[in-house]
Amino acid sequence: MRQVIAQLEASKIREIANAGLGRKDVLAFWFGESDEVTPEVIRRAAIESLASGETFYSQNCGLPELREALAQYMGDSHPTAGVNAERIVVTSGGVSALMLAVQALVDAGDEVVIVTPVWPNLVAQPAIMGAQVRCVPLQPHGGAWQLDMPALLAAITPRTRLLIVNAPNNPTGWTLTCEEQQQILAHCRSTGTWLLADEVYEKLYYEPTPHGCAPSFLDVAEPENRLLVAHSFSKSFLMTGWRLGWLVLPASLVDAMGKLIEFNTSCASVFTQRAALAALAYRKEITPRIVAHFMHCRDTLVPLLSQVPGVQVAPARGGMYAFFRIDGFDDSMDVAKRLVAEAGLGLAPGEAFGVEGRGWLRWCFASKDASRLAEGVRRLSKWLEHNRPQ
Amino acid sequence: MRQVIAQLEASKIREIANAGLGRKDVLAFWFGESDEVTPEVIRRAAIESLASGETFYSQNCGLPELREALAQYMGDSHPTAGVNAERIVVTSGGVSALMLAVQALVDAGDEVVIVTPVWPNLVAQPAIMGAQVRCVPLQPHGGAWQLDMPALLAAITPRTRLLIVNAPNNPTGWTLTCEEQQQILAHCRSTGTWLLADEVYEKLYYEPTPHGCAPSFLDVAEPENRLLVAHSFSKSFLMTGWRLGWLVLPASLVDAMGKLIEFNTSCASVFTQRAALAALAYRKEITPRIVAHFMHCRDTLVPLLSQVPGVQVAPARGGMYAFFRIDGFDDSMDVAKRLVAEAGLGLAPGEAFGVEGRGWLRWCFASKDASRLAEGVRRLSKWLEHNRPQ
Repeated sequence: MRQVIAQLEASKIREIANAGLGRKDVLAFWFGESDEVTPEVIRRAAIESLASGETFYSQNCGLPELREALAQYMGDSHPTAGVNAERIVVTSGGVSALMLAVQALVDAGDEVVIVTPVWPNLVAQPAIMGAQVRCVPLQPHGGAWQLDMPALLAAITPRTRLLIVNAPNNPTGWTLTCEEQQQILAHCRSTGTWLLADEVYEKLYYEPTPHGCAPSFLDVAEPENRLLVAHSFSKSFLMTGWRLGWLVLPASLVDAMGKLIEFNTSCASVFTQRAALAALAYRKEITPRIVAHFMHCRDTLVPLLSQVPGVQVAPARGGMYAFFRIDGFDDSMDVAKRLVAEAGLGLAPGEAFGVEGRGWLRWCFASKDASRLAEGVRRLSKWLEHNRPQ
Repeated sequence: MRQVIAQLEASKIREIANAGLGRKDVLAFWFGESDEVTPEVIRRAAIESLASGETFYSQNCGLPELREALAQYMGDSHPTAGVNAERIVVTSGGVSALMLAVQALVDAGDEVVIVTPVWPNLVAQPAIMGAQVRCVPLQPHGGAWQLDMPALLAAITPRTRLLIVNAPNNPTGWTLTCEEQQQILAHCRSTGTWLLADEVYEKLYYEPTPHGCAPSFLDVAEPENRLLVAHSFSKSFLMTGWRLGWLVLPASLVDAMGKLIEFNTSCASVFTQRAALAALAYRKEITPRIVAHFMHCRDTLVPLLSQVPGVQVAPARGGMYAFFRIDGFDDSMDVAKRLVAEAGLGLAPGEAFGVEGRGWLRWCFASKDASRLAEGVRRLSKWLEHNRPQ
């Protein structure tokens, strides 16, 4: 086995979850997924496709009608971005979209800059390709995390092949402003650096906006800029287990991306793409309901959490996580394990997302029944009463 | 974009197919897929899973019950191989299984040896990882292709990180004997070379055997040998469009492979895995029928083809292709394009599979209605009558 593969860090979230598997008394908030089943109208489209016998290979870049529907969907949210179907490829999940982008751009030895803490997959993917990864940490201010823009811009030099940014951010809920995106993009233009934006949480955004989503690099970029944006059906349509996503990319890269899809996964299942078409057709019923419910979840959890003595937490502007710390508990891996074992509460340890996350805990608030969140806080409070550091 | 990605060859099969798209008068045999829908019992299992709401993430390495069922399935065919569930990971298609194996083993600059002509994805995958690829050509003897064993063994040195072999072979139908496998494996042991065997056609084998499949490297290897075997549900269960496969690998590699799956595709859909479980449960009804039918297809096509003046062809021992040449037609890309345009016959050009394939044509004989094959030969004969080289 390659040394770089042997050294890839195993998921610390899985490590905690495995400790609680099979225990029905554990309230689990560790994974980044809602506990609500995919809407019936979406499942029905896949069922009908299967019943009608759509079990053959499809186009590498996705069904033409799905690429067209995605272009319209992106156009609704980003009317100035000029996204047409020729700039979209359908992928086997958001994670596959990101991996394909990295394969297209990163040679072994290339330098890649990543804003952390972040979903660990973003750091692992360039490492798999043999890249040198450099992390630029967000800074916590109270419970909220902020970008150190001078540090980021200083890290991106003409030697930087690729910048990877995930905003709205998993795990911190940090988002970029439009002005910050302009500044980053201008700097990347000057250094010739490609930009890979993981914007899968753009619809899960809780601030007032004209188009119902977080600021996107697409809003400030030109179609032929060195920008790729990764998306997923997982979050906005409750479709985590379906494994379907897409990339928005310069049209000049689409042929190459079609080849990479052929050599990685060949294509997405037609019946899954039919489900995606239904999701997009019913998007005005589905996504606003999900976002309103997640906001209710956030606004249930965060005030309760912030009342717990010693807890530092801020309401996330986007995403589906509360990222928080508890005074006196600096080893969040240990805390997460103890919470599973002693309190029946399943959270993700902050160091799963980078060294900066040490001392923090991630709580996925996407829960069909918001009362589970209140019960979780009750368990945390009770456990803390008996386990305060002296 | 990386230079190595820009230089990846676009599919020559797609180039031909695109020339015939939208033409209902073309009999298409260009892709490696049957035109028969997935059996109903398999589709029903996925439909029931979707209806019951199985739309969440699953284990990186696959559902434990599917890994268990695959271990039993592999044990039926390879009783001495000692394959247990801990040596199996479920992947998003056979192509993903192969790509994951290459990611695990091949650093940029490593030397990889591949037996060609072969499915082009096998050559592209190590190139994506930055490897140096060295091809060892099979040799045509009449219509049948044979391995030049001394040339292969001479090509594999201690500098060779990985050997990739696809047998039964796409496109030639060439298969390895058990003795050849022993010889290759022993040589790879002596040079420390890993072996990646693409055995997705093992059940589509038309010679009498005790266990109903082609010879496999698993039959001659020890569990901890440097051997990975890639498999797929596509061919033996008519499930091309589902994108589900698996790897058999040393147990010591499974944890690393789970991480790579997380970073590439995360997991396969649960409903697709339920379909796979149904496929395995009904394997004794499904696969023998498919194999008998494909053999009937082969034995319809090959005798008719061999009666066409100037055609060199031999019955494939395995796989689902007739690979043949026509005297006087050395530019098979040109012939394939003309056959689409002038004869309404869609075949794959041999050079899609490597330079050795130039002058050859691949005909996928997996056709639900075998009379389509006879009609195809009639079109070829008629076209040749008017287009013989002078």
